[in-house]
Amino acid sequence: MSTGGNGGATTATNKQVIMRDYVSGFPKESDFEITTTTVELRLPEGSNSILVKNLYLSCDPYMRSRMGKPSALALAQAFTPGKTILGFGVSRVIESNHLDYKQGDLLWGIVGWEEYSVVTPEMHFKIHDTHVPLSYYTGLLGMPGMTAYAGFYEVCSPKKGETVYVSAASGAVGQLVGQFAKMMGCYVVGSAGSKEKVDLLKNKFGFDDAFNYKEEQDLGAALKRCFPKGIDIYFENVGGKMLDAVLLNMNMHGRVAVCGMISQYNLEHQEGVHNLTSIIYKRIRIQGFVVFDFFDKYSKFLEFVIPCIKEGKIAYVEDVAEGLEKGPEALVGLFHGKNVGKQVVVVARE
Amino acid sequence: MSTGGNGGATTATNKQVIMRDYVSGFPKESDFEITTTTVELRLPEGSNSILVKNLYLSCDPYMRSRMGKPSALALAQAFTPGKTILGFGVSRVIESNHLDYKQGDLLWGIVGWEEYSVVTPEMHFKIHDTHVPLSYYTGLLGMPGMTAYAGFYEVCSPKKGETVYVSAASGAVGQLVGQFAKMMGCYVVGSAGSKEKVDLLKNKFGFDDAFNYKEEQDLGAALKRCFPKGIDIYFENVGGKMLDAVLLNMNMHGRVAVCGMISQYNLEHQEGVHNLTSIIYKRIRIQGFVVFDFFDKYSKFLEFVIPCIKEGKIAYVEDVAEGLEKGPEALVGLFHGKNVGKQVVVVARE
Repeated sequence: MSTGGNGGATTATNKQVIMRDYVSGFPKESDFEITTTTVELRLPEGSNSILVKNLYLSCDPYMRSRMGKPSALALAQAFTPGKTILGFGVSRVIESNHLDYKQGDLLWGIVGWEEYSVVTPEMHFKIHDTHVPLSYYTGLLGMPGMTAYAGFYEVCSPKKGETVYVSAASGAVGQLVGQFAKMMGCYVVGSAGSKEKVDLLKNKFGFDDAFNYKEEQDLGAALKRCFPKGIDIYFENVGGKMLDAVLLNMNMHGRVAVCGMISQYNLEHQEGVHNLTSIIYKRIRIQGFVVFDFFDKYSKFLEFVIPCIKEGKIAYVEDVAEGLEKGPEALVGLFHGKNVGKQVVVVARE
Repeated sequence: MSTGGNGGATTATNKQVIMRDYVSGFPKESDFEITTTTVELRLPEGSNSILVKNLYLSCDPYMRSRMGKPSALALAQAFTPGKTILGFGVSRVIESNHLDYKQGDLLWGIVGWEEYSVVTPEMHFKIHDTHVPLSYYTGLLGMPGMTAYAGFYEVCSPKKGETVYVSAASGAVGQLVGQFAKMMGCYVVGSAGSKEKVDLLKNKFGFDDAFNYKEEQDLGAALKRCFPKGIDIYFENVGGKMLDAVLLNMNMHGRVAVCGMISQYNLEHQEGVHNLTSIIYKRIRIQGFVVFDFFDKYSKFLEFVIPCIKEGKIAYVEDVAEGLEKGPEALVGLFHGKNVGKQVVVVARE
């Protein structure tokens, strides 16, 4: 069954972001190119697929794991050289062969980095509440928001009054974890890589304290200064030297929720972490997690977070790149900490 | 109240093992000396203490953490240079000022490495079942047994049919973890540092497979060979390179119970562990634990394990050094893997 209708045109041009070849080291803009192809605006009969127009694309650190050569060790399947890269995005249905979706529906989920994608709806959620900016479904109300929610509430086992440290704290996930922790009555400190981001943490997101890790000679001493009584919970986005410094400052029965290790993704050989014996006598739990395991809680999350947004209890900062052409620059910038807040690429506003 | 009675003698000679100075690097026999002093065989009136004669002393890897300079990062208080070292032991009460203990009672808990100790009974358990060798209360029925029990059943979250890897597997804790895992219906592989130990694992303790880590060029490849379908549970006694190799071979949602990291205790700078990003996409939980947190389950443990011993379901191997004079050699040998099975020092047999 087709619910199509697109003003009569049967094809459209379709700009796409292509990965030229497998990436090693830090991704560069030149690892990607923009091509233009043509897309059929009608779906073949009998398929179960949906044609969508992409509005907002999400730049997420985990995408680095899809740029390398195929490996059993990757989180998701590698991108194919010469093909469009994939990521989370917000889209509008143009035509649907799927009973549950109809023209005009708004979705978020995995799409190609292109103007139009044909998708099957396994990894797509319908957007019901449009009284918040649609782009929020790439961040606060999408995968990163769910990551912060599941990571903090389900993995960190937080208690009121505990001390919480968040690295990469102004990013899409970090800014939310800090605010969730404050709502629970925790003492929260974040780190980031510029004065502007540190100011955001303190003044916009309500962190109790924050520091610029690039200006600290000794990360362990910085943490000791911010947490004279030690860290109960570490929300890990960074890895490497930061984790080493944290381990020395963790409290007894501390918890480390490992969401990401962005400092390690572009290194050919990962840094060694040396202070792991702390795990024993401090009885530390280090728990890796992936948001995909928690999407059964997505509606519960929305019920919690949408009122918070409407009541102004949660601040949220996006860094918006205008146009698909700006996609590679925005994506690559993520690994140099150029984004201030959640990095979004606008493909089209409607 | 004194329940004393010691054949009329009021003093006795008391051989002791003294730590000369704080230890750095691998402990050496020359870091210790044997001295002989005199002990009063009557307790002062009004104290709450107990005079015990030490029978068996336990050599345990955690003792290394007490030999260094005092540090906030140590598991237990540092030994004092020039003073008797302390450890778990089995003792007989000679005289007691404590209402709950009387002459002739058998105890296990922390005592001095000496012939006679005056103790307060905070960290002591009465021995009720003497139909098993008394020395077992330094191992199978004491702290290491409880460590294996709590670590495996409480920390590893094991399920029938899972794959379990145990490093330092012929040691006091490892040999028991492997046998507990086999009882549960797991596939169990252990590693150790000699052919003799590997043979013990396979032929005495019933491990499904075992390898000599000193003869493997590539630990990751050895684990891949033994676990073609990956490792669900790693019982960590070793740390460093071994942990790195394990992380590459862990399965999704795998668990690492961190009991010890003996390969790291004598290093000035701990080895770096490089494969920690595996924690994320494999959703690995790494949980440090210390047996002291689980002693409320000690009687439950005995109810489980004593019948197993009597029915011959658990094999147990001790490496016995005769005489307190042999104590330093036995203790130091632990860090070179010289012991085959649980290392015990016999001070006196009755």
